[in-house]
Amino acid sequence: MSSWEDNVRRTTPYVFGEQPKAKDIIKLNTNENPYPPSPKVEEVLRSFDCSLLRKYPDPLISELTNALAAEYHLPADRIFVGVGSDDVLAMSFLTFFHGKKPVLFPDITYSFYDVWADLFEIPYECPALKDDLSICKEDYLKENGGIVIPNPNAPTGLLCPLSDLEEIVKMNPASVVIIDEAYGDFSGESMLPLTEKYDNLLVVMTFSKSRSLAGSRIGFAFGSKKLIARLQDIKFSFNSYTMDMLSIKVGVAALSDRDYFRSRVEEIIATREWTKEELQKLGFSFPDSKTNFIFATHEKVRAEVIFEKLKEKNIYVRYFNKPRIDNYLRISIGTKEEMEHLITVLKEIL
Amino acid sequence: MSSWEDNVRRTTPYVFGEQPKAKDIIKLNTNENPYPPSPKVEEVLRSFDCSLLRKYPDPLISELTNALAAEYHLPADRIFVGVGSDDVLAMSFLTFFHGKKPVLFPDITYSFYDVWADLFEIPYECPALKDDLSICKEDYLKENGGIVIPNPNAPTGLLCPLSDLEEIVKMNPASVVIIDEAYGDFSGESMLPLTEKYDNLLVVMTFSKSRSLAGSRIGFAFGSKKLIARLQDIKFSFNSYTMDMLSIKVGVAALSDRDYFRSRVEEIIATREWTKEELQKLGFSFPDSKTNFIFATHEKVRAEVIFEKLKEKNIYVRYFNKPRIDNYLRISIGTKEEMEHLITVLKEIL
Repeated sequence: MSSWEDNVRRTTPYVFGEQPKAKDIIKLNTNENPYPPSPKVEEVLRSFDCSLLRKYPDPLISELTNALAAEYHLPADRIFVGVGSDDVLAMSFLTFFHGKKPVLFPDITYSFYDVWADLFEIPYECPALKDDLSICKEDYLKENGGIVIPNPNAPTGLLCPLSDLEEIVKMNPASVVIIDEAYGDFSGESMLPLTEKYDNLLVVMTFSKSRSLAGSRIGFAFGSKKLIARLQDIKFSFNSYTMDMLSIKVGVAALSDRDYFRSRVEEIIATREWTKEELQKLGFSFPDSKTNFIFATHEKVRAEVIFEKLKEKNIYVRYFNKPRIDNYLRISIGTKEEMEHLITVLKEIL
Repeated sequence: MSSWEDNVRRTTPYVFGEQPKAKDIIKLNTNENPYPPSPKVEEVLRSFDCSLLRKYPDPLISELTNALAAEYHLPADRIFVGVGSDDVLAMSFLTFFHGKKPVLFPDITYSFYDVWADLFEIPYECPALKDDLSICKEDYLKENGGIVIPNPNAPTGLLCPLSDLEEIVKMNPASVVIIDEAYGDFSGESMLPLTEKYDNLLVVMTFSKSRSLAGSRIGFAFGSKKLIARLQDIKFSFNSYTMDMLSIKVGVAALSDRDYFRSRVEEIIATREWTKEELQKLGFSFPDSKTNFIFATHEKVRAEVIFEKLKEKNIYVRYFNKPRIDNYLRISIGTKEEMEHLITVLKEIL
């Protein structure tokens, strides 16, 4: 070992979903949107003045922040924008979880939370979800140095009642509570209005899923003016210009097309509900997903077996070899045609 | 103060150069390239298939990494890519400077280094540049937890002899030595070949200056395979997908146009040399810049006065109100026409 390695920070990185390069596959493994982004995105790219790229982008990301402010009806100084919600979350962990008490998040949840905690040397505890994979509110009413809960939760897909989450926020005035609504647009519920009432609540969202822009890396968060100001201080101590000029333009364009956004989200929800019925007929059970994926387990065949057989048939879903969830598959909702094909192939396999 | 603020990390953010929005100004304050990026950038944007944006980008950024590998003649596993060189440097501080001994960088240098050190709670010391603003090699031969030196240095513009830097790298096998070559393309010299010989050397570069792509946020670094692997681990513990799809395409396009890159860099160097002569005639002196800016002080008139008067005339340069350099202006090299106008206005002011 080289001696400089003594000074190196060590982590076990997050394992991202496979990004297979073959063209003839059905990709239901990373919760991407099956539809292209709004046509307004193409318009803005085709007409963009490339000579502008020689200059730094606006470090305040005002154009996108103002568009978000108008769309979500709150002032710009209560909005933070980052390179995907992962960047927003990483910055939030770095900013808000700097105490000595453990940060709390569920044992079964987005598997990046413990990676960030390890990276920034933040102590943490992971209260176990109940047997039905729902969140036990009482677990978050004990002493802590911060809380992060996705709603709906991933990979379970389950929505926690907003009243439970509000109680958690209310009972923890000494902690920042992050509600990660990466899949919130597919649930129809949001904690956003409560950011007005509680200055310790941060609600995180993304353009990656519901707005078909995973490739552009745009995440955002809403909170109190004070909370957002703290987050900005850390962001500006990390990188003045995180959002590139084109991503900002693309984000504004996508946001401007509200009808497209709503109709695509409705389509995905309809396909999700159809898929649930079909999976049930095949002997699958699952928590009642309010996201763009279904977390399913089969009564007879092991998840890992189905995972491998689907892959042989060029259908990629996600399998987590982790305690309590190693007999589940996380299946993203694709187009109706893709899901029909999935059901056909599953019939052959089972 | 809200009680959650007890858990908040506190920093004093980096202060970025003004980004005035008016159109009729001459902007010589952030070392941007006065020329647009290669026409190949526009081509790639016009033909880009926007439906791809629904998917996550390649987390390994292979297309751009492979293009850099071909251009700089070294294997892809010795290359790291990030959201501007600021992101590369922030990740490097987080990764490599995790010991208890102080990290070393010059007292007069890129003013983000101490911000990153404060952010990540890294102890540091800042050896003073000599009176002529050059680096004193011996200052970096004492015990330390890491070293970062820009070459050429900013805002001085001075190039340090590569033999001095090599000695620093060689004599510090227990430290990672980062050479920040953000302005290296304007100097004609690089430590890159030495990354073959020393496994503790990281050389950082950017598309922001010499390739006219500040707006696209693309930075990169070269090092030993082992060094890059460590950096990747931390990057993948922070954000799987930092580079968006369009920035990757734009970077590859710019890199493919070697003739354009070289001719624009030569043009800027020629304008720099012309500007030096003119400034000298007006009573300015400066370290001999090998960058795309000149760090100038006037024999009679205070820098701050000139700074304000230039601004009144819609010419923006950079002024740092800091010890030892508070009588200097950092003037980016614009087009020949812009610099001619600057000289005319300076004549009026002085």
